Amino acid sequence: MEFTAKFLAQLLKGTVEGDENAVATKMAKIESGKPGTVSFFANPKYEPYVYSSKAAILIVNKDFVPKEPVSATLVRVENAYSAVAELLSYVAKKKQKARRHRSLFAHWYLSTKFGKKVYLGAFSKVGRRSSIGDGTIIHGHVYIGDDVVIGKDCLIYPGVVIYPGTRIGNHVILHAGCIIGSDGFGNAPQPDGSWEKIEHLGNVVIGNDVEIGSNTTVDRAQMESTVIGNGVRIDNLCQIAHNVIIGDHTVMAAQCGIAGSTVIGKYCILAGQVGVAGHLKIADHTTLLAQAGVLGNIRKEGEVLLGSPVIPAKQYLKAYALFKQAAAE
Amino acid sequence: MEFTAKFLAQLLKGTVEGDENAVATKMAKIESGKPGTVSFFANPKYEPYVYSSKAAILIVNKDFVPKEPVSATLVRVENAYSAVAELLSYVAKKKQKARRHRSLFAHWYLSTKFGKKVYLGAFSKVGRRSSIGDGTIIHGHVYIGDDVVIGKDCLIYPGVVIYPGTRIGNHVILHAGCIIGSDGFGNAPQPDGSWEKIEHLGNVVIGNDVEIGSNTTVDRAQMESTVIGNGVRIDNLCQIAHNVIIGDHTVMAAQCGIAGSTVIGKYCILAGQVGVAGHLKIADHTTLLAQAGVLGNIRKEGEVLLGSPVIPAKQYLKAYALFKQAAAE
Amino acid sequence: MEFTAKFLAQLLKGTVEGDENAVATKMAKIESGKPGTVSFFANPKYEPYVYSSKAAILIVNKDFVPKEPVSATLVRVENAYSAVAELLSYVAKKKQKARRHRSLFAHWYLSTKFGKKVYLGAFSKVGRRSSIGDGTIIHGHVYIGDDVVIGKDCLIYPGVVIYPGTRIGNHVILHAGCIIGSDGFGNAPQPDGSWEKIEHLGNVVIGNDVEIGSNTTVDRAQMESTVIGNGVRIDNLCQIAHNVIIGDHTVMAAQCGIAGSTVIGKYCILAGQVGVAGHLKIADHTTLLAQAGVLGNIRKEGEVLLGSPVIPAKQYLKAYALFKQAAAE
Repeated sequence: MEFTAKFLAQLLKGTVEGDENAVATKMAKIESGKPGTVSFFANPKYEPYVYSSKAAILIVNKDFVPKEPVSATLVRVENAYSAVAELLSYVAKKKQKARRHRSLFAHWYLSTKFGKKVYLGAFSKVGRRSSIGDGTIIHGHVYIGDDVVIGKDCLIYPGVVIYPGTRIGNHVILHAGCIIGSDGFGNAPQPDGSWEKIEHLGNVVIGNDVEIGSNTTVDRAQMESTVIGNGVRIDNLCQIAHNVIIGDHTVMAAQCGIAGSTVIGKYCILAGQVGVAGHLKIADHTTLLAQAGVLGNIRKEGEVLLGSPVIPAKQYLKAYALFKQAAAE
Repeated sequence: MEFTAKFLAQLLKGTVEGDENAVATKMAKIESGKPGTVSFFANPKYEPYVYSSKAAILIVNKDFVPKEPVSATLVRVENAYSAVAELLSYVAKKKQKARRHRSLFAHWYLSTKFGKKVYLGAFSKVGRRSSIGDGTIIHGHVYIGDDVVIGKDCLIYPGVVIYPGTRIGNHVILHAGCIIGSDGFGNAPQPDGSWEKIEHLGNVVIGNDVEIGSNTTVDRAQMESTVIGNGVRIDNLCQIAHNVIIGDHTVMAAQCGIAGSTVIGKYCILAGQVGVAGHLKIADHTTLLAQAGVLGNIRKEGEVLLGSPVIPAKQYLKAYALFKQAAAE
Repeated sequence: MEFTAKFLAQLLKGTVEGDENAVATKMAKIESGKPGTVSFFANPKYEPYVYSSKAAILIVNKDFVPKEPVSATLVRVENAYSAVAELLSYVAKKKQKARRHRSLFAHWYLSTKFGKKVYLGAFSKVGRRSSIGDGTIIHGHVYIGDDVVIGKDCLIYPGVVIYPGTRIGNHVILHAGCIIGSDGFGNAPQPDGSWEKIEHLGNVVIGNDVEIGSNTTVDRAQMESTVIGNGVRIDNLCQIAHNVIIGDHTVMAAQCGIAGSTVIGKYCILAGQVGVAGHLKIADHTTLLAQAGVLGNIRKEGEVLLGSPVIPAKQYLKAYALFKQAAAE
């Protein structure tokens, strides 16, 4: 692919400062500053790289005032950070293949329903009475059980396993190896110290515009449904236990674990390796910082919490400063 | 499915209080209290829902004394919590399909031995000289290496990988994507700072009545065996390293990690995200609370521990209260 | 397999003390001390087992002076710990099967390039224009996308998924279920509180002599590459986010998570469940102990750190002693 500064300014609704015929053939990180590339300057921390960069084109915020000479042609845009996303999305769409058939090496049943323009890759299986919406792409090595409903324009990567009865909305992306709908972890203690398995007859319901990361696991409900709300983004290797409800537009970084029956509010942010105990309610707009452990309800909206069990992040960091100071004496 | 209060009382060995012909067609959580459902009241915290519930039938402990009028027909049982498990298990059995064939899309060898009534799904493979016991169900997309022994009435979900030489007892459930028998993580430091791989020639041995969660990994031993005892329950995304021994009837919630050669006792409970270092012994009946980190042996039975490194949970919570108080001042 | 003491002394460049015709048919841990086995005494903690062991042959350091009588024939070597690795590696090589064909149940394209002596197992797929180097073994149930380059003598276990465009060096081992090259977790916040997906057009580049554990996930870069250096060893269930760079010969135990764009130095050691935040630099030779959380750059080489956020391990343990003492009073 080849971009001129002029073309980028049009695409990203910006203005050119310098040679409008400057050409880039690749996108690159500002730190690497390779010749013939287009880079982005969005994070002030990286400003020194602006002056050392050999990139052909540099996309910057419209109000950026350089303190030193810059060799690249500048394209000034409203928001350089969003412009990265826009250009990546433009290129990704151009690269998309239009494979829209069902592989001869795939397996399905007479009662399986396929919408228009569905792709089904080699060694994938879709179960009885399941239905796949228009434009959905199911890569190879995917297992979809019986009675599953998947909406339109979804993208299911290899190694995904979807247990029977799962319901998935439109525009959902499931990354490789994620498991949707496995048995909840329910065990009733017996008098002799052993455990009796509690069967799980519920399912998992996933809203629209959801993305779930590689090797993440979502267990189905005992009764009723484990629910992943609209617009939720879950990173790799997270655990969502039975009967959990994740509110709309909440994001969760890698390796978080949410225990059974907990309700996470809307617009929450969970950093990596956070753990939330079972049967809790977490208010909307809560931010849980990395490795936080939540053992009780969070009722007040908009808090930023840290520690295990969590306390306000500022308080944690102050207390931790005293903690380490005590040992230094 | 349709249940009358009379039928439920018979099944669960209880008594009806109200209309014995009341009918429910679904099970529901007590919080949702939907009409036409059967709900359970076991946890006192949920008592207010008893009075607002529109469920047709409510299963309660035999000594429950309502403080307000209840619209549902009550079925009084010895233990409402166990009754949930019993009813779920009854329905799950009714729903079970009796598919007992080997898919044309599956792969095995002349030397592979299959017991009676084995199911083998599409795109699954069972290796040379491996043997599968009577009544075991192997879903599609399962890889079973050479020389594996699997007992009777096991349930192996899609995406499971079982390395060569693994031995699995009866009534074992392996959830989607779990990996049994991968190489232990052994690396010998070399003088130049690099690492030399240590080969692992042992295997994994799993007892009877074990359940292992989705995407959990169990590494094989360097020599001899990594052992998962009888009745053990392991949740999703746990890591069991080489040469670990897990005692009978121990349960482990999601995302726990047990490092190499550690011996976990019997009847232990590990909450989510617990880590246990290598070459340790953990006494029987130990409880490790969420996110605990164990760096030394635990010799006394029956302790409840928290923190990293662990101390008695009560002491941890008291110390943590002082820790956060210091920052509040 | 059968080993005499004489043979072992030759293989391991040691000397026999006792009956040079003593025979062992298996390797065993020193703690189990089973008759007819060969055991190793490397860790001083296990010395009592030397005297109770019924092993036929015991491999010890050349300067070991027994304090009590030992029944086994001794083979004295320079380094008993390395000798274990050497013998395991010898046996592993003897056991290796020489299967070098492509299964009829595998799938590839006209444009896929295979080197000499490549094995491709049942239900595996290799994409368009991908190339597989000489002697590489790809087990069954592996998905390799388009435009992937894999070097010589690699070992790819079942359930591995390799996204398009990934580049892998020589002598690389990828364990079951690991996912290489899934989308980075990038989401741009929108004014209405929702998130817009940021596409990822980069790839993952893996060096030579790398081993990656079961169900570990490595995301591809937004632009350019996520890089795993030469000689790196990553255990099970780790998360390596987009644009991360892992320096040569760094080792990482299970369940570690490295957030986006962080650069981990060379020769670092990360114990289990460590978390490192995004956009950081970790100096060479850093040791991060179990469950550590890193929130800032680590500039000084060779530190041993603990806690969340990390401080020197000694200081952490001293502070933690005071922390728990406060609650005991």
